[in-house]
Amino acid sequence: MLRGNCIVGQSGGPTSVINSTLAGIIEEAKRSSAINVIYGALHGIEGVIQDKLINLNEIFDSESQIDLLRRTPSTYLGSCRYSLADKDNSVYEKIFSIFKKYNISYFFYIGGNDSMDTVNRLSQYAHSIGSSVNIIGIPKTIDNDIAITDHCPGFGSSAKYIATCIRELARDTQIYNRNTVTIVEIMGRNAGWLTASAALARSEGESCPHLVYLPEFEFSMDRFISDVQNALKLHRNIIVAVSEGIKMNGKYICESSMIGEVDVFGHKPLSGASRVLASVLLQETGVKVRAMELSLIQRAGIHLSSYTDWQEAYDIGAKAVQFAVDGQTAKMMYFYRNSNSPYDVEIRSADVNEVANVEKLVPKEWISEDGNDVKKELIDYITPLIQGEVNLVFNNGLPVFLKRGK
Amino acid sequence: MLRGNCIVGQSGGPTSVINSTLAGIIEEAKRSSAINVIYGALHGIEGVIQDKLINLNEIFDSESQIDLLRRTPSTYLGSCRYSLADKDNSVYEKIFSIFKKYNISYFFYIGGNDSMDTVNRLSQYAHSIGSSVNIIGIPKTIDNDIAITDHCPGFGSSAKYIATCIRELARDTQIYNRNTVTIVEIMGRNAGWLTASAALARSEGESCPHLVYLPEFEFSMDRFISDVQNALKLHRNIIVAVSEGIKMNGKYICESSMIGEVDVFGHKPLSGASRVLASVLLQETGVKVRAMELSLIQRAGIHLSSYTDWQEAYDIGAKAVQFAVDGQTAKMMYFYRNSNSPYDVEIRSADVNEVANVEKLVPKEWISEDGNDVKKELIDYITPLIQGEVNLVFNNGLPVFLKRGK
Repeated sequence: MLRGNCIVGQSGGPTSVINSTLAGIIEEAKRSSAINVIYGALHGIEGVIQDKLINLNEIFDSESQIDLLRRTPSTYLGSCRYSLADKDNSVYEKIFSIFKKYNISYFFYIGGNDSMDTVNRLSQYAHSIGSSVNIIGIPKTIDNDIAITDHCPGFGSSAKYIATCIRELARDTQIYNRNTVTIVEIMGRNAGWLTASAALARSEGESCPHLVYLPEFEFSMDRFISDVQNALKLHRNIIVAVSEGIKMNGKYICESSMIGEVDVFGHKPLSGASRVLASVLLQETGVKVRAMELSLIQRAGIHLSSYTDWQEAYDIGAKAVQFAVDGQTAKMMYFYRNSNSPYDVEIRSADVNEVANVEKLVPKEWISEDGNDVKKELIDYITPLIQGEVNLVFNNGLPVFLKRGK
Repeated sequence: MLRGNCIVGQSGGPTSVINSTLAGIIEEAKRSSAINVIYGALHGIEGVIQDKLINLNEIFDSESQIDLLRRTPSTYLGSCRYSLADKDNSVYEKIFSIFKKYNISYFFYIGGNDSMDTVNRLSQYAHSIGSSVNIIGIPKTIDNDIAITDHCPGFGSSAKYIATCIRELARDTQIYNRNTVTIVEIMGRNAGWLTASAALARSEGESCPHLVYLPEFEFSMDRFISDVQNALKLHRNIIVAVSEGIKMNGKYICESSMIGEVDVFGHKPLSGASRVLASVLLQETGVKVRAMELSLIQRAGIHLSSYTDWQEAYDIGAKAVQFAVDGQTAKMMYFYRNSNSPYDVEIRSADVNEVANVEKLVPKEWISEDGNDVKKELIDYITPLIQGEVNLVFNNGLPVFLKRGK
């Protein structure tokens, strides 16, 4: 067992439970006799390179502080989009000199696919120089697009938020006695997991969403119009869940609206897939149509997160520390699902080079043949991940979050 | 005391607590010896005209059913945008013949400004024909723009949702080590109450939102750009809260983007104020800017509603029944605030003709001199309205809502 200090960093886009993973690492590292000081790298690997480390033992010296961290969305340590891909040796030398300076034995990096690439490259470099630093990646992403792992921490909470919003919108869209179409745009450029989770709203006799379009299936505007027209024969008020990343002829739909558009200020407005679909539908059918995006709240909205996701995020962080202390390195932690019902997962590790640069998409066989819905297998897969609720700390009517000092 | 039956209807846009008002009316009417059958009009006054009434005593025969109604957003009975303004006598005759057919002594109408106009016109007609039906309006609107009442049921929950989202976005926008501007568009065409509520996020040492633009103050694009540039000198990541209804030269900003725009499908995309501001800002300053709308969830999102609002919505419905049974008619129920600290309101009634067709805007003296922020008085006014949380009924990870049969 190596004795020394550790660094933990967060990278990529935020989720509502990434700080729960950080909390799991901090608490397990405190419990471990192998780890003395727990450093946090500000803004991911950039914080290591720039020697911007903070002492997390001092900041998280009480259970209440850890608890508040777990109930705070986004990345407490800050994040980065820094890639080691095109960096020369000097950057690696810098990173490992920092490791040496702070007597680092363990490096934990919480992030998505790009971050696992960083973990992979650091691991290879460590091996090449015979470094004894154990390097472990811990997955997080609302997009759920990391390979090998059954699912990613962060996804379940976003899925729960999205499905709840769709169910609330179902009540909202059905108030008037006339046809309406509401097009809800959901995150996920290439992977349709989040958009698919809208379909969970359908339990309890709810028919919404009526149509679901994932980016894994080539989009057709003609088929879309016909799908909506058919759905309107059965239902007065239609809700369409659509991924921001739907494509036609290899091109994002949302990009198509950027051509030739200039507003009165002479600027090109930004536009999303849902707005393009809404404007086409309005012109082609005359039906009352509304476009909306679930926006950043689908990743920042810890006020409606999944307890299962939140607890798993903690557990996978804690387990990462155990595995690192046990001598594992060049690994990514992942969930292996033993069974769906009852839901049972275990936490394992895989060689990170098997993970890096592979994007896990929704399998074609989980999408309906017409490409306008998802199959039961996909719903069964997501359902266990949204179970349970997380209570926040409210003060004066609003949730209290932890803020990092300068 | 009149003995007979009653009709209740819901009208206008939904809120997350309008069904709580319906529940208050149902339960108080059940308790009253003056009321036998409680009818619900489907889709507001349209349901009366079309003789589409349902028996609410039968549907709500248990406390658990009432409880679920209270935890369901939007209008259980459906809604309408039907105006009596340009209708001839035959429509009124039809309505009062339905009243007679069902032995109606009391009519309760839950809605916003347009609905209070309906209540006013029905009351005048009732008076003109010597009808003994007592007619009472109960306010609801997320926009908080109804006259006389201190605040409107529905507003507090939306305000709480908006302020919470801003606080979550604050964590989300601050992750990267570079300047960003996030423009959050909030509902309210003419009244800025909802946009103002974003400023509540600022307690607990939070600096977001940094700029707040209400529709009551003439918008200036030059001043906006300069405001953002000044804010960026003090803060790395700026959040701007902006009303969908901001105007320049008497014209909505969001309309300006509709001129001359055609996408590749030959259609005009729909666009909002935040997108217009984002595109201008991007061109003028080059800063990374993101536009987003809080969308329909700010009115449908009962998953984050205010207990105070939710309970007051119930109480004002119950009190309306008491007042009607006591002989009041041609009234709108309203809240009178006795004090802010401790928060104390009482429920009163006012002549509905004093309310109808008056839009209550944010007073100029509650907006900062530069028009880019709100004053402490406005925050103090809203704060008591967002206190407390409402627990929903969850099943299989999602909130359960009540659905009306066909």
